[in-house]
Amino acid sequence: MDLRVREHARLVADALDLSAGDQFVIKAEPQADDLLTALYEVAGERDAHPLGVRTNRSGRAIRAYLRAAGKSGVEFETPGHALALTEAADCHAIVRSHSNVTELGDVAPETNAAYEEAHGPILEERLGDRWTLTQHPSPADAQLAEMSTEAYAEFVYRAVNKDWDAQREFQAEMVEILDPASEVRIVSGEMTDVSMSIAGNHTINDTNVHNLPGGEVFTAPLPESVEGEVLFDKPVYRRGKEVTDVRLVFEDGEVIEYEASKNEAFLGTILDTDPGARRLGELGIGMNRDVDRFTYNMLFDEKMGDTVHMAVGRAYEDNVGEGNEQNRSAQHVDMIVDMAEDSFIEVDGEIVQRDGTFVFEDGFEG
Amino acid sequence: MDLRVREHARLVADALDLSAGDQFVIKAEPQADDLLTALYEVAGERDAHPLGVRTNRSGRAIRAYLRAAGKSGVEFETPGHALALTEAADCHAIVRSHSNVTELGDVAPETNAAYEEAHGPILEERLGDRWTLTQHPSPADAQLAEMSTEAYAEFVYRAVNKDWDAQREFQAEMVEILDPASEVRIVSGEMTDVSMSIAGNHTINDTNVHNLPGGEVFTAPLPESVEGEVLFDKPVYRRGKEVTDVRLVFEDGEVIEYEASKNEAFLGTILDTDPGARRLGELGIGMNRDVDRFTYNMLFDEKMGDTVHMAVGRAYEDNVGEGNEQNRSAQHVDMIVDMAEDSFIEVDGEIVQRDGTFVFEDGFEG
Repeated sequence: MDLRVREHARLVADALDLSAGDQFVIKAEPQADDLLTALYEVAGERDAHPLGVRTNRSGRAIRAYLRAAGKSGVEFETPGHALALTEAADCHAIVRSHSNVTELGDVAPETNAAYEEAHGPILEERLGDRWTLTQHPSPADAQLAEMSTEAYAEFVYRAVNKDWDAQREFQAEMVEILDPASEVRIVSGEMTDVSMSIAGNHTINDTNVHNLPGGEVFTAPLPESVEGEVLFDKPVYRRGKEVTDVRLVFEDGEVIEYEASKNEAFLGTILDTDPGARRLGELGIGMNRDVDRFTYNMLFDEKMGDTVHMAVGRAYEDNVGEGNEQNRSAQHVDMIVDMAEDSFIEVDGEIVQRDGTFVFEDGFEG
Repeated sequence: MDLRVREHARLVADALDLSAGDQFVIKAEPQADDLLTALYEVAGERDAHPLGVRTNRSGRAIRAYLRAAGKSGVEFETPGHALALTEAADCHAIVRSHSNVTELGDVAPETNAAYEEAHGPILEERLGDRWTLTQHPSPADAQLAEMSTEAYAEFVYRAVNKDWDAQREFQAEMVEILDPASEVRIVSGEMTDVSMSIAGNHTINDTNVHNLPGGEVFTAPLPESVEGEVLFDKPVYRRGKEVTDVRLVFEDGEVIEYEASKNEAFLGTILDTDPGARRLGELGIGMNRDVDRFTYNMLFDEKMGDTVHMAVGRAYEDNVGEGNEQNRSAQHVDMIVDMAEDSFIEVDGEIVQRDGTFVFEDGFEG
């Protein structure tokens, strides 16, 4: 077995704190068979009980089920066996790995939505346990990233199999700046100049717990505080649709104007979902410099070094300080701004990153 | 998708009586992805809830787990999540399909045995539900059968995708003979002449319920009634080991002499497991003539037309008549006698099959 896969599995087990007696569920498609095998192995080493199950959000099987169910007019219910399994489980590895990233492209959106809603209680149950989401490199994922399979695998393992203690310390410096701060301003090029308050909200140091790779620090803006405009340089890729050059204009926290060079109507659908979908729920700073390119995979993209991302929609409860409002929405759509050139982040009036270099790094020029 | 796979999936669903609201578990390895996909599709058509899980008895993943657990000295327990899943399930498709039939060949037998024992309660639970065991053709299974992958697939679908109502009627004629009978004698060539009593025991017509393919009628001999000797023409293939030319001599129902041309010691280990392992638990008549060759896969081999099989070890409860003794053992090992030539089956003194032709068929010569 590729030693990188074994190392990856060990890091997943560490992220989950996989321990003796753990009822361990591994959600994976056949493409991830190498990593699944390595996870079974590490489960044997740690006396945990592994059980591999198919994912319910990708692949040919679920596509076949959803289309047939849609045609039959099935009213989706929460499946009792999957719920019982999740309730009995202690921890979960969710492994992404596609045979074809557009596999669900011909499932009706309303079928998808109804199915997802029926699975809500299972998701809630899982989120209350220990869980880690990760990626096993597949040819289809490499193709989405416009890379060879081998080069993509190297990219994935560079980003995932790293010294997470060192990464945590590096990111902690940014957490120390953001956590007590009030005002944040993001400026990039001619088109992005946006300000927001994060006063009283918590900044989280995300390294190697729920996401592998991790590598961001993130917080939540106060929902009504966002002012200004943002051009998101990197495409938004969602449910097989690419939305490019998204530009949002905020007033009193709300998106009052939007445009995109491709799939603008789809962007409109997202923003019109509910009132919360027109407000920001997250501000994140990408700090994993081994994620050095855009791969159309938010698990990596949002961790990219020298970027910030903002999400319209739901804010994470853990970010919201006591007495502050939590933005609520059925959406949470991350979008990315490149900060490598002609850019800065200002916190309470002081520049803390310029052109991708942080104030606590060599070469910083305030 | 290959239409034969869709037809196969429909037959599995029929065998399970898959119905609206069913919590449906599909146990399969990645090699069976086509059939798993077709089973998800038929689940959608029938408003059942499909959940694909990995098998716990074949494949690289379980081999990696068992070796690591063995090395760590793990004491196996019944995994709570797998048990909860099985308890919440209504029906189960177990799909065999190997990437390598010798994948568990380097797992220590005692590790395997301890693991199987810990999973006993899960097996018991599943056997109390609706379940069907079937085969998806894979290159490794074809290789075991010494066939090309394409020819093996044709063999599998001929045996599985058939008119089961017609097959059931054909087999019923043999059930009518055996069910009320007392004495059965099997003679083949110079080396096989064995008699046994089946008085009071029930003959079951196995078509398309628990096995796909089905195609045998089977009953249980009275444990102390078996007399004579048998040469099993077809190799016994078990846990990656082949035992050839097995010869057993019975007295008062017990094996008092045994030999084999290959792996005789392994045969001895089986027979020495417990006292019941030295007695017959099953007599079966293979009647699926689309199973026209030996493929080292008991799911098919025991259904082969023009054969009988006998199993040392445990008798099925359903075969045992009121007041009759059920042979008990941890073993149940089927072995096959070719009846195509120079052979006959005698029931209560009358010949009911000669050289593979039944008394109720054209061309029978008593």
